Amino acid sequence: MSDAQALRLALVPGEPAGIGPELCVRLAQRPRDYHLTVFGAATTLRDAAAKLDLPLTLTASPGAAPRPGELALIEIPNAVQSLPGTPDPRNAAAVIEALTRAADGCLRGDFDGLVTGPVHKAVINEGGIAYTGTTELLAAQAGREVVMMLANDIVRVALATTHLPLRAVPDAISIDGLQRVLRILHRSMHADFGIPDPVIAVLGLNPHAGEAGHLGHEEIEVIEPTLAALRDEGMQLIGPLPADTAFLPGKLRGFDAVLAMYHDQGLPVLKYSGFEQAVNITLGLPYPRVAVDHGTALDLAGKGIADPSSLFAAVETCARMVVSRRARLGTD
Amino acid sequence: MSDAQALRLALVPGEPAGIGPELCVRLAQRPRDYHLTVFGAATTLRDAAAKLDLPLTLTASPGAAPRPGELALIEIPNAVQSLPGTPDPRNAAAVIEALTRAADGCLRGDFDGLVTGPVHKAVINEGGIAYTGTTELLAAQAGREVVMMLANDIVRVALATTHLPLRAVPDAISIDGLQRVLRILHRSMHADFGIPDPVIAVLGLNPHAGEAGHLGHEEIEVIEPTLAALRDEGMQLIGPLPADTAFLPGKLRGFDAVLAMYHDQGLPVLKYSGFEQAVNITLGLPYPRVAVDHGTALDLAGKGIADPSSLFAAVETCARMVVSRRARLGTD
Repeated sequence: MSDAQALRLALVPGEPAGIGPELCVRLAQRPRDYHLTVFGAATTLRDAAAKLDLPLTLTASPGAAPRPGELALIEIPNAVQSLPGTPDPRNAAAVIEALTRAADGCLRGDFDGLVTGPVHKAVINEGGIAYTGTTELLAAQAGREVVMMLANDIVRVALATTHLPLRAVPDAISIDGLQRVLRILHRSMHADFGIPDPVIAVLGLNPHAGEAGHLGHEEIEVIEPTLAALRDEGMQLIGPLPADTAFLPGKLRGFDAVLAMYHDQGLPVLKYSGFEQAVNITLGLPYPRVAVDHGTALDLAGKGIADPSSLFAAVETCARMVVSRRARLGTD
Repeated sequence: MSDAQALRLALVPGEPAGIGPELCVRLAQRPRDYHLTVFGAATTLRDAAAKLDLPLTLTASPGAAPRPGELALIEIPNAVQSLPGTPDPRNAAAVIEALTRAADGCLRGDFDGLVTGPVHKAVINEGGIAYTGTTELLAAQAGREVVMMLANDIVRVALATTHLPLRAVPDAISIDGLQRVLRILHRSMHADFGIPDPVIAVLGLNPHAGEAGHLGHEEIEVIEPTLAALRDEGMQLIGPLPADTAFLPGKLRGFDAVLAMYHDQGLPVLKYSGFEQAVNITLGLPYPRVAVDHGTALDLAGKGIADPSSLFAAVETCARMVVSRRARLGTD
């Protein structure tokens, strides 16, 4: 880390019994021009490497020109040995510690960005730790309001609400909340993605975006006033658009991001159009954080057949975000 | 219509100031092995043909081997001359009369199926006619409960609810209602699409299909009991599935149809994956009815640039449905 230019990324494999560790071992084989430090258990990573029959060398600090299989490790030991496919709630504390220590390193400036593998929500809760998601955990740790955005090569979809019962969604959409979400999204499009004047498409809440009030009033009462106020500040906001036609490929090409009002309105097209390369980005943190867009895949763990595309895309996205932030802030 | 074998399709252009008439003129140029009768105004069709510089011959009854541009016409005159791009509410009654007379012909057995172009909802209502949609109109006329399904070559998406404010959706999903929808869908997959034992994927209402009750209870209280009861009758029902991953291409290939709980959950992927060829099918009527999956496109009307793919697909889909019904009923 003596080279101030090099990107320093923190990597957390996530659930040790899932596919996270083997994806990290696959990532370690790739040539890279950034420094990579993994927060996890050496035994888990070594077991994964042995199962894949791939080289793995764990070092104390990241080398400038790592050999294939070389990874810097900050050891976070598991409470019990981890078996692929069989998560043990006794290891929940180690999973969370890896996340919080890696994030703390980012907050302190030891790392430039955070990449995370899949965590198993139920196992963490069974381990006695109240956990609703890594996004929420990192937001609380940093004391920031954040926005979840999923992205692949086709589309970036940010969510105004995330994991809420459908019944609770309409009342969760407010002018203030939507303004905060759009400000975070707009700022991130600029800072993290290098788009100075982003075009953001905003979906309606109701079918046909409410059809002039015939199919709901939230567009008229909440979304349109929000967009009008932010347009007055210079933001390029399209909408509220009917969700079914907003994702037509010809329209998508004109948008830098789409803001969906809720989970199942925004994510089906994202996942249909390129699930393997999709990543989950947390906007609004003091550092870029990118996660894989898949779960722990316990049924695949340890078999060497898990597709590492999403982790590779997550690292590449995180690195690009760091470069963009540096360029904008004029620091490197 | 002397040939009992020939398919007899009724065609309604829809709003005369929209692109419907010119799409019908384009359709008339195509070779066909079915009898086609259009319900509309001769002047509107002739004007459209003249604008496109295409031949059009209107006949009293469909010929066995029509020349390009030949169409049988049942004249439904407009109240006032129609100008492309400028709908006149005074013609609303003619639009509705064309629909109801064509549908009546299907109900009487004069025609085997109905294909409809785009209607402009607001203009019909401005014309003093209470109209929520052609699907609803045809259901009321036939006295049947129906299901709306949109389809392209990639996926068929049926909707448990259609044009409701999002806020009203959760309470609109009931065990009885969902059973009726699934019975109609299942029966139609068999009768209209020739799939004897269809695999139907049913989406959850909430994100992650409720995540075992953490994100809503409708899956546990409504959807799962519905599916269990119908599985006992032998239906192949998968779900309730999380909507974001149900549309992954690899999964879709295993489903004959997807039942979405509401409009914006099901239609974005359908439209993203192939809007031009998508059609809107009404299931549950005594006859197959297929509509285009686009609007009146007033901005394109009369310019000769409107894409006829959806109307072509609608006619082909309707014809295939008629053949499937005949084969199943053993009558031709």
